Amino acid sequence: MQILVASNNKKKLGELETILAEAGIAGVELLPLSAVEAYEEPVEDGRTFADNALIKARAGVAHTGLATIADDSGIAVEELNGMPGVLSARWSGTHGNDEANNDLLLAQMEHVPDERRAAAFVSTCALVTPDGQEFLAEGRWPGMLLRERHGENGFGYDPLFQPEGEERSSAEMTPAEKNAVSHRHRALEQLVPHIAELAKSA
Amino acid sequence: MQILVASNNKKKLGELETILAEAGIAGVELLPLSAVEAYEEPVEDGRTFADNALIKARAGVAHTGLATIADDSGIAVEELNGMPGVLSARWSGTHGNDEANNDLLLAQMEHVPDERRAAAFVSTCALVTPDGQEFLAEGRWPGMLLRERHGENGFGYDPLFQPEGEERSSAEMTPAEKNAVSHRHRALEQLVPHIAELAKSA
Repeated sequence: MQILVASNNKKKLGELETILAEAGIAGVELLPLSAVEAYEEPVEDGRTFADNALIKARAGVAHTGLATIADDSGIAVEELNGMPGVLSARWSGTHGNDEANNDLLLAQMEHVPDERRAAAFVSTCALVTPDGQEFLAEGRWPGMLLRERHGENGFGYDPLFQPEGEERSSAEMTPAEKNAVSHRHRALEQLVPHIAELAKSA
Repeated sequence: MQILVASNNKKKLGELETILAEAGIAGVELLPLSAVEAYEEPVEDGRTFADNALIKARAGVAHTGLATIADDSGIAVEELNGMPGVLSARWSGTHGNDEANNDLLLAQMEHVPDERRAAAFVSTCALVTPDGQEFLAEGRWPGMLLRERHGENGFGYDPLFQPEGEERSSAEMTPAEKNAVSHRHRALEQLVPHIAELAKSA
């Protein structure tokens, strides 16, 4: 069977392929968005990660008739009541400007002492099927916000995020290390039983 | 009796004077911070408006031995889980830059539809006495966030805030109109009985 992965990020598709292989699930072909003709991305104006993941997964089903997996993710800072949250990618006002987003978050958290710098990377994955089943899974990767950037790997807030039990930032971890424990990995893993069920009944 | 008003904003002292007069409370002399010698402002690093108001009021008592009133206030946007909150004055990273703060909030809320633009101006006032009594009062002024600036009065987020029941922004209201219904007014009013009690026993 085919499942659409509604993301332009090829790494996400590869990550899910690995997870499915490790779980011993065969017979599932994952399709990237680039394989879909004339796809128009929906507006992600949800209030939560789950809202946005569902918006994207439903749009994929509507356009292709295939079961679709989508995710939305970001960083939730306790001191900011869980924000930047769904606004993570455009916290500073322009979409995808990692430099400006990191600068703003550092400035907002400048006077906040270490014991109040808890944060988590959060990912919510949605699986929507053509017959209208909807599955949601949330993965959290807890840690704290650093006071300056560390490391060159990753993207987004990786240079400012130190996972629990780590002495490095997530931008100092290798992609393989990060993938093995990340929020997205934790969310995708929870979808595996549902994907297995779909593959079995296909 | 004398009460210190721990604020550099003379309008706040005037506002409280008016409220006390209207309540018929006599014999209270309000002192501004400028009347206090060698006063060092404490760091306002609280997690909430109440934290910061208490920090300032306690500092006033410690330095002068006088009962002290202080307030902290800001805007709480529902879509941002109550933020900017205590970070209202430095939301964009630099303290007191109203232009940049308004620009950032507009950009963060750009894709948010009208029915999700609820916001409130919030003020928490603290009254701390030399013998260690502490009173807190919160005032809320509910409304919604506009999509562009309106009006020239006020300061902070006034040009973006439309109070409930109003068709103008709070920056289009006169100072007298605003003072009569504002969050700070609502908080200060709640302190009146405690001030009256202090005045009586002084």
